[in-house]
Amino acid sequence: MLSPEELDRVTVVLVRARNPNNIGAAARAMHDFGLRHLRVVNEYAVPFESARSAVDASEVVANAVVCASLVEAVADCTLVVGTTAVGERDLQHALYPLAEAAPQIRTELHRESGRIALLFGSEKTGLSNDELSHCNWLLTIPMHEYADLRHPSMNLGQAVAVCLYELVRDDPPEQKLINPPSGASPITAAEQERLSALLTEVLEATGYTRRHPANCDAAQIRRLGRRMSLNDADAPIWMGILRQLLWKLGRGREE
Amino acid sequence: MLSPEELDRVTVVLVRARNPNNIGAAARAMHDFGLRHLRVVNEYAVPFESARSAVDASEVVANAVVCASLVEAVADCTLVVGTTAVGERDLQHALYPLAEAAPQIRTELHRESGRIALLFGSEKTGLSNDELSHCNWLLTIPMHEYADLRHPSMNLGQAVAVCLYELVRDDPPEQKLINPPSGASPITAAEQERLSALLTEVLEATGYTRRHPANCDAAQIRRLGRRMSLNDADAPIWMGILRQLLWKLGRGREE
Repeated sequence: MLSPEELDRVTVVLVRARNPNNIGAAARAMHDFGLRHLRVVNEYAVPFESARSAVDASEVVANAVVCASLVEAVADCTLVVGTTAVGERDLQHALYPLAEAAPQIRTELHRESGRIALLFGSEKTGLSNDELSHCNWLLTIPMHEYADLRHPSMNLGQAVAVCLYELVRDDPPEQKLINPPSGASPITAAEQERLSALLTEVLEATGYTRRHPANCDAAQIRRLGRRMSLNDADAPIWMGILRQLLWKLGRGREE
Repeated sequence: MLSPEELDRVTVVLVRARNPNNIGAAARAMHDFGLRHLRVVNEYAVPFESARSAVDASEVVANAVVCASLVEAVADCTLVVGTTAVGERDLQHALYPLAEAAPQIRTELHRESGRIALLFGSEKTGLSNDELSHCNWLLTIPMHEYADLRHPSMNLGQAVAVCLYELVRDDPPEQKLINPPSGASPITAAEQERLSALLTEVLEATGYTRRHPANCDAAQIRRLGRRMSLNDADAPIWMGILRQLLWKLGRGREE
């Protein structure tokens, strides 16, 4: 179970949602389960006017933040969890079924004080590989496996409702937090981005990028950084190491 | 977790659904979680044409059965579970949160061979008291409690998705079936209706109905019957007793 303060640290991010009814449905599910923070990432104008009519969710929709990029939408979050339908693509992330993912998110909310983002992709394509690269890990809603192997796909508003239902449920006894909080806290997505940028510079400066271009697209470097699971004690150390490297390679200033 | 045969014994019943998009969304959620049997109770023509466009759910919608009455829709079911938002009305039934209701339904599917109906009411009003009286018991999806005490209401398609997600999830270890099946099976809703009808006749014949009209509306008598939790060994005995009573009261034929 999440306290009001913990609920307030959860942000739902809809990436490239196309149908205003789905934005409204997502907002309504958020209201039903006590969440307030909705961010919408769209390149073009968000069709909010229709979404604003969503029953009961007027406050959520009125306070929704429109972001020009996903980087901006998750910048202040210390944990970014993506949602995906399995089998769609070659996943490069840890992936948990919703029932296992939810207690992990609750534990994170119990022990840390950072914001958590839950990402949902567009109705047609879900989250792209590039969008997924901004995530620390992924969750999926287990669905029926049909004999013809065609995987059912879930409606966006229904997927949000199911995820939030599971997220706010009571912790089963064995899931209750027993770990004491550690001294260090996770870093934000914005700090992760700075680390990735610095790492990219280093890889370019060393010639690695030229020799192994297949390993060096932005999404791969981003995932590499996320997999380090850096906390705010170690992150400055790594940043220092990378800056030092850059200086040594003649590309940066000495600290 | 439910086997394919068990999934096939679950029927979703939408009572007076108004919006074809919601019928489509319910059908899609059923497809997502492996259910096939949809029944729709509507006094007027069901707007199926729009619902048929529901992505991925064409088979569920194509096979949906339109029923003229709720009695007809649940006639072959041995367990009828209604869904309700708490706080709407004075409940006369046992009510469980979804997380407790789902394992009970799974256990029933594991140990009995009858059909189970899951009822959802109209978007505006939910299930009426009369409609609830056809249920053995009720479930509710726990939602956020706001300080102003206004209870959030859930979208019909989202409520169906959340209920089915919870219904098909794995049994936690302690929920696994340990009771051996008993010899007797629950009776169908149609048999329950016959019992209620007979009981009503008896109450009228005895003059009870005239003396205590407040206790004798159809819904109350129906609930009275449901609370007996009759199995197929005892039901014929009770029917015999009631028929014998009627004969004695000069209203029926001796068996």
